[in-house]
Amino acid sequence: MALNVAQKLIKDHLVSGEMNPGEEISLKIDQTLTQDATGTMVMLELEAMGLDYAKTDASAQYVDHNLIQVDSKNPDDHLFLESAARRFGLYFSRPGNGVSHPVHMQRLAVPGKTLLGSDSHTCANGCMGMLAMGAGGIDVAMAIAGEPIYITMPKVFGIKLTGELPDWVSAKDVILELLRRYDVKGGVGKILEFYGPGLDNLTAMDRHVIANMGAELGATTTVFPSDEEIHRFMTLQNREDDWVEIKADAGATYDLEDEINLSELEPLVSKPSSPGNVVSVTEVAGTPIYQSYIGSSANPGYRDFAIAAEMVKDRTISPGLSFDINPTSRQMLTNLVEDLHIASLLQSGARLHQAGCNGCIGMGQAPASGRNSLRTTPRNFPGRSGTKEDSVYLSGPEVAAASALKGEITDPRTLDFPYPKVTEAKNVNVDDRLLDKPIPPKEAKQVQLSKGPNIVSIPEMDELPDTLEIPVLLKVGDNVSTDEILAGGARVLPFRSNLPEISNFTFEGVDTTYVERAKDSKNAGGHAIVGGYNYGQGSSREHAALAPRYLGLRAVIVKDYARIHWQNLINFGILPLKFTDEKDYEKLEQEDVLTFSDLRNQLKQGDALTATIETKNEDIQVEHNLTSRQKDIVLHGGLINWTKARQG
Amino acid sequence: MALNVAQKLIKDHLVSGEMNPGEEISLKIDQTLTQDATGTMVMLELEAMGLDYAKTDASAQYVDHNLIQVDSKNPDDHLFLESAARRFGLYFSRPGNGVSHPVHMQRLAVPGKTLLGSDSHTCANGCMGMLAMGAGGIDVAMAIAGEPIYITMPKVFGIKLTGELPDWVSAKDVILELLRRYDVKGGVGKILEFYGPGLDNLTAMDRHVIANMGAELGATTTVFPSDEEIHRFMTLQNREDDWVEIKADAGATYDLEDEINLSELEPLVSKPSSPGNVVSVTEVAGTPIYQSYIGSSANPGYRDFAIAAEMVKDRTISPGLSFDINPTSRQMLTNLVEDLHIASLLQSGARLHQAGCNGCIGMGQAPASGRNSLRTTPRNFPGRSGTKEDSVYLSGPEVAAASALKGEITDPRTLDFPYPKVTEAKNVNVDDRLLDKPIPPKEAKQVQLSKGPNIVSIPEMDELPDTLEIPVLLKVGDNVSTDEILAGGARVLPFRSNLPEISNFTFEGVDTTYVERAKDSKNAGGHAIVGGYNYGQGSSREHAALAPRYLGLRAVIVKDYARIHWQNLINFGILPLKFTDEKDYEKLEQEDVLTFSDLRNQLKQGDALTATIETKNEDIQVEHNLTSRQKDIVLHGGLINWTKARQG
Repeated sequence: MALNVAQKLIKDHLVSGEMNPGEEISLKIDQTLTQDATGTMVMLELEAMGLDYAKTDASAQYVDHNLIQVDSKNPDDHLFLESAARRFGLYFSRPGNGVSHPVHMQRLAVPGKTLLGSDSHTCANGCMGMLAMGAGGIDVAMAIAGEPIYITMPKVFGIKLTGELPDWVSAKDVILELLRRYDVKGGVGKILEFYGPGLDNLTAMDRHVIANMGAELGATTTVFPSDEEIHRFMTLQNREDDWVEIKADAGATYDLEDEINLSELEPLVSKPSSPGNVVSVTEVAGTPIYQSYIGSSANPGYRDFAIAAEMVKDRTISPGLSFDINPTSRQMLTNLVEDLHIASLLQSGARLHQAGCNGCIGMGQAPASGRNSLRTTPRNFPGRSGTKEDSVYLSGPEVAAASALKGEITDPRTLDFPYPKVTEAKNVNVDDRLLDKPIPPKEAKQVQLSKGPNIVSIPEMDELPDTLEIPVLLKVGDNVSTDEILAGGARVLPFRSNLPEISNFTFEGVDTTYVERAKDSKNAGGHAIVGGYNYGQGSSREHAALAPRYLGLRAVIVKDYARIHWQNLINFGILPLKFTDEKDYEKLEQEDVLTFSDLRNQLKQGDALTATIETKNEDIQVEHNLTSRQKDIVLHGGLINWTKARQG
Repeated sequence: MALNVAQKLIKDHLVSGEMNPGEEISLKIDQTLTQDATGTMVMLELEAMGLDYAKTDASAQYVDHNLIQVDSKNPDDHLFLESAARRFGLYFSRPGNGVSHPVHMQRLAVPGKTLLGSDSHTCANGCMGMLAMGAGGIDVAMAIAGEPIYITMPKVFGIKLTGELPDWVSAKDVILELLRRYDVKGGVGKILEFYGPGLDNLTAMDRHVIANMGAELGATTTVFPSDEEIHRFMTLQNREDDWVEIKADAGATYDLEDEINLSELEPLVSKPSSPGNVVSVTEVAGTPIYQSYIGSSANPGYRDFAIAAEMVKDRTISPGLSFDINPTSRQMLTNLVEDLHIASLLQSGARLHQAGCNGCIGMGQAPASGRNSLRTTPRNFPGRSGTKEDSVYLSGPEVAAASALKGEITDPRTLDFPYPKVTEAKNVNVDDRLLDKPIPPKEAKQVQLSKGPNIVSIPEMDELPDTLEIPVLLKVGDNVSTDEILAGGARVLPFRSNLPEISNFTFEGVDTTYVERAKDSKNAGGHAIVGGYNYGQGSSREHAALAPRYLGLRAVIVKDYARIHWQNLINFGILPLKFTDEKDYEKLEQEDVLTFSDLRNQLKQGDALTATIETKNEDIQVEHNLTSRQKDIVLHGGLINWTKARQG
């Protein structure tokens, strides 16, 4: 049978299950990626599991999120992660070395391999012919420990690319076009696979841009073939030997299909406050902006900075505008410095920040109150910039640079100078000085973990009781993101290794009374949360499950889930339920009390559960779609307990 | 009579008083400088005073402290300051343009002029043949409004420089040598004036380094002559026309004298946690460091970065070390980029931060718990780095770069390569793109102040009651810094324009119960604080007076004061008292209640006041040294009330 790239990658790594969309399969994981915001917890989990040494081909711990050191918490975490990387046999990418996704692509990605990462944009490395997926931190911990990852076999959505991008249009506009067509749920349960003659005109880094923001469609991941362009890219990285060709077989088919003619694309912009809110730049041209921001894993390439530099060279940005440049890797930054692109940006009036995620995740560069920000970042969820009630637009670097010159959102095609063609850097300054290699197992055994005062072990969690009688403490609407469940940003993320502390921020933007009420519920048997569609979209951070679990959350009932958060709920022993009849959503109110009886038997008997609304004396049906393995995990109270039981 | 440079500058600006050391004089102010941490309050004061347009030759508002934007507070302040600069006719140096002191030196400093700045390192511009002094924000507000500054005529301390700096020794070691000799109180009541043949071998920026850290000796300011070197410097800045020669008259004398033979100096290091704790680098060589940090107004020059770059070029920093590079001005950064020094630093493993004060004031780059940091910054007061119980060493860039290579404090003379001679940049990229010029008065009148939600007007303060019966809420020891009274750093500074909010941080590192107890005291008539020597050393931030005043502080009794904080206490209507008999310090305990009766009469009659310790039924004598103008200010409850009364 002729296979497409996604099917080939899955087939090569299949541990259990059949490759039928909707069925659970498990896959061997070759590589893992953790970043510092999620990685400290992963390392605590590895410690709790008693792991000796990573069982993957390559696992890398990056420090890219929490680079702002206003007290000892972040640097203490850096040292903890460094010690954990040495202890468990991981690569360690030091603070300042850059964003995980482009650095991994440059230095460690290998076509044909699987990559699991505790970051929702891990899919970016799908550009390299890898099956690269975001997951909860504990899934990554399991993968480092040699366990397969369990996923629902997705459909493969083939997107044929034809034509060639016009001047002033770039890879970002390809993925924004897909978001325009399918919105933030359009990729759920699917792998996006790009193919066709249009690929010949997209560099490896262009494909990274597209693969990265597949996450914004909710896709399981995105894959590209590994072709001559990937060969070229890896050769420049002195890693030619790691290259293998991966292409779809002749006659391969897709479960779903669409086509994009690159020649017909125009510059696009996502309006506040969803990446799916896409319009032509012409519709928003003239909107005044306070800030133009270039960087992040959604536009990480040399080209993305170089095109902006060429556009602003010998020009001056609009008075009063904050033009923020966030380099994405140190290796690339040195290239941009040597080629004088950084000089052009600085001379135009730019502010240059250290290499890392920075403002993409609310760590710096927050906009002023009531002002518009235009960014090349992947997401504009409410408040993600760090500013409450922010107003963030997303675009590619051409629109961002044009708008920086004009002080308002600007169609770059209306500028009075020609499109400055830029190419990738001819030579790459391959530089692993801040990327430490794993040390051998014998030495690793001797390493002591360096735990600062803010790094606290994970408290023990109890198993699921047979009867739950719990109040609904919160009822929320559709598309609640993990940022709303537990915000990122500089106030919150420093407590990522301190569960008692970080849980105090849970749902703070939604209901400031939640934490107090949840703590009260905890000793009385816990509580439930009710929500709408696409619950838990966005960042993969498992704290969004772990923190409410710590506060007593035992069950969530929604219309449907974002994939990673659903998995995280299971991993921490929270019942992830869906309304059998979505209209029942209307029946439930905050403070209603729900009873689930005889849970163990009910779970064994099928997908449906009965819940009694005590306060209304009425039963509703809910369902869970849990596999027997997942039921077992939830009943144990989560994956750590489950792993312990398996080991014991 | 032959005059030295300091006397000439004072004589040229004398408004009142006689030039006899110890007498109050007032001086006309030609230029002012405000930065964002102190400037927002200055702008609120200008608004409260109803100022129409700045009456100085040049006043500049810099944004260099609060560059980390993790929410809308800092960018809102930036926009407020921008609008205030436009409203009141000031220059506005945008975020990312650099640290006030070097930028002012490059673009606005004029030999022979006076400069008053709401930053304790304003004295740095003394390198330009200016009388440049740090002061409380409200003093600067008064100066912008055309009022003279009142100071006590200092002694002039002539320091003769001979010889030439050896290899591996730089200007930083000159000022560290003075700190070694005289410690942090050695300059109190004095102007440090440098002269002699050794000057010929010190560039304008070298002199900036020395003048800057005169603040660490507690000096009123530091002055250098304006000679051919300053002419050269200003010519490179395209400001040749502003240059005038200012030299001491032949036969000029000094109140005090010392001499430094530059040829005999060696690399020096200040140990934790005082700039005055100076030893030879040989005494601390081998001390392991977590961090090496280059930047700040204490080593702001092109040379300071270039020497470090040449030292680490084609080498790699010690594994695990954080090598933080903080450029001090954007103009200089572009020079360093073009000359490939930034490339050398990055390639060695450095982290490059945006141009500004950054970690010097605890805004980023805080060290990990229990680790040593080595910095070219001016101060290592406890906790100033942002990390509690930090361990910060100070040095010049040669020691910092050598130590970055070795991972421990290293005498650069022991390195296995020759001293890389570096020179200043041959051409300066003069660049005012982020330095906005004042707009004309007619346009300025139309400007509306842009006030974000965190910018709160200054509450009204009551006048001094005739009788105070107040408890001692806090008894502290010697050398309490304004950082300990009210910390800088990223948690606190964002509230600098919100007095009710920022006052909650007062003395938090000293006694966490103070704020609560002070608030209780407020309605009961206020409270007193008792301290030892050098009370209020360090940063000039007036919030260290304003915040405790807001919390009910009416009187401070100490052994002696740091000059700027003493002035700030007066400006906000707090009685700044000294023990007549220092032994009485021992008599007072926390919670003792003090009564001052008939205050108006007592103040009129002389310098002494009687205070009754009610709890011990005993009288003690205290004194104040207030001029009649200062008494009047304190009796009115502070300078704003006093100005209002004068206007009314």
